[in-house]
Amino acid sequence: MTPRFYTPLAHHDGDLVALPAEEAAHLTRVLRLEPGDAIRVFNGRGGEFEALVDSLSRAEVRVRVGAACAPAPEPRVAVTLAQAVLKGDKMDDVVRDAVMMGVAAVLPVVTARSEVTLASLARGRRRERWARVAIASAKQCGRATVPPILEPRTFADAAAALSALTLPGPGLMFVEPSAGADAAPLGELAPLPPRETTAVVGPEGGWTREEVERGAAACRLVTLGGRTLRADAMALVALSALFALWREF
Amino acid sequence: MTPRFYTPLAHHDGDLVALPAEEAAHLTRVLRLEPGDAIRVFNGRGGEFEALVDSLSRAEVRVRVGAACAPAPEPRVAVTLAQAVLKGDKMDDVVRDAVMMGVAAVLPVVTARSEVTLASLARGRRRERWARVAIASAKQCGRATVPPILEPRTFADAAAALSALTLPGPGLMFVEPSAGADAAPLGELAPLPPRETTAVVGPEGGWTREEVERGAAACRLVTLGGRTLRADAMALVALSALFALWREF
Repeated sequence: MTPRFYTPLAHHDGDLVALPAEEAAHLTRVLRLEPGDAIRVFNGRGGEFEALVDSLSRAEVRVRVGAACAPAPEPRVAVTLAQAVLKGDKMDDVVRDAVMMGVAAVLPVVTARSEVTLASLARGRRRERWARVAIASAKQCGRATVPPILEPRTFADAAAALSALTLPGPGLMFVEPSAGADAAPLGELAPLPPRETTAVVGPEGGWTREEVERGAAACRLVTLGGRTLRADAMALVALSALFALWREF
Repeated sequence: MTPRFYTPLAHHDGDLVALPAEEAAHLTRVLRLEPGDAIRVFNGRGGEFEALVDSLSRAEVRVRVGAACAPAPEPRVAVTLAQAVLKGDKMDDVVRDAVMMGVAAVLPVVTARSEVTLASLARGRRRERWARVAIASAKQCGRATVPPILEPRTFADAAAALSALTLPGPGLMFVEPSAGADAAPLGELAPLPPRETTAVVGPEGGWTREEVERGAAACRLVTLGGRTLRADAMALVALSALFALWREF
């Protein structure tokens, strides 16, 4: 398979563009490509092109953009994943999986039981890290679209945005079956896909009762069977199930 | 939540049973429970009971079995996951995820592009390791059933068993969209759930052309959208999508 590289600068056949530093390092140090080698480039906004390595220097790698070509298809439903930030590096895996599945955007959410704050996320430059994970995942899965990592929010803010429809709605909040009578199995959702939605997934310790109440006012509460799913698997299970329901698969 | 322990010996209210060594170590060294503490035990065959820690000694932990209680529900469709053995420890993660999702059994499969042989799996006692992973996952997800890890087979043997219906069929073999005209999207499967099936999932390098042909003779070939899914995520995506299609969720 022709190796793929991300450069937001590629737009037209004939463009001569530099690769971002991380992409240049991948091309030269990992794959050891040379001038004249055939590659593909994608611009993260849906454009994918054949290309040739033009020149390599210590300072930069330039590639000559060629004919447009077809990337992996995007889902018809634009799903924003609002994911409670998980412990350690697990959020990296969720971002990677969500991009592979085809989400339109990822919104990191700080919940009552998250072990982080908005301030600690900013200090740790986590959003920038997740953006790099999203690019790496798009390279692997064949997408030419790199979903944005949105500015992290508290759960209360995210719920308010869902109510105000400044986040795509109606939202779907995934909860344990024990969450109560407001929650319905996924199978009770209409099989007709919406144009867009936000899927809301909780942290390791689950949602608090207050969060479930707040969520119920802003979203539909959805359950996924009777077994306890690991928090770091929940987004992948939820996205797979939604895409099966909506015939994306 | 009351801690749960696995013991195949628990069958009736009133039984006094010993825990297996790993479970005893978890109870004493990790959770530091004492005689009189309330626990739950499950026997791996669907039985779950309230129980009390009876006695602790260096040699063993005994528990007094109490009233039967309800474990997490089992899926109505009995899915055997025939999974190509993945690199490194990734197969551990797939077994853990598959048990959490509710599979009835796991069949490790050696394919043309697997980096293992049946002999190397036996030498490495990998099947025994996966059986321990299955118990650990059942503890976490609330199932009282521990799915068996079947004796590993070559892909050719597994395909022959599917044709002969000595593995549950009709089987569903998950393939890349490029696999050809025999493959159909998951959405074209009948939404009516079968009583049982075998889901066949490939290795990191994908199936060979010969394997796809052999599989097409024994199973339905199924695709999951147009993006390239990581091999270690495929089983979780496939099981989630099937369970959504069949209204297990």
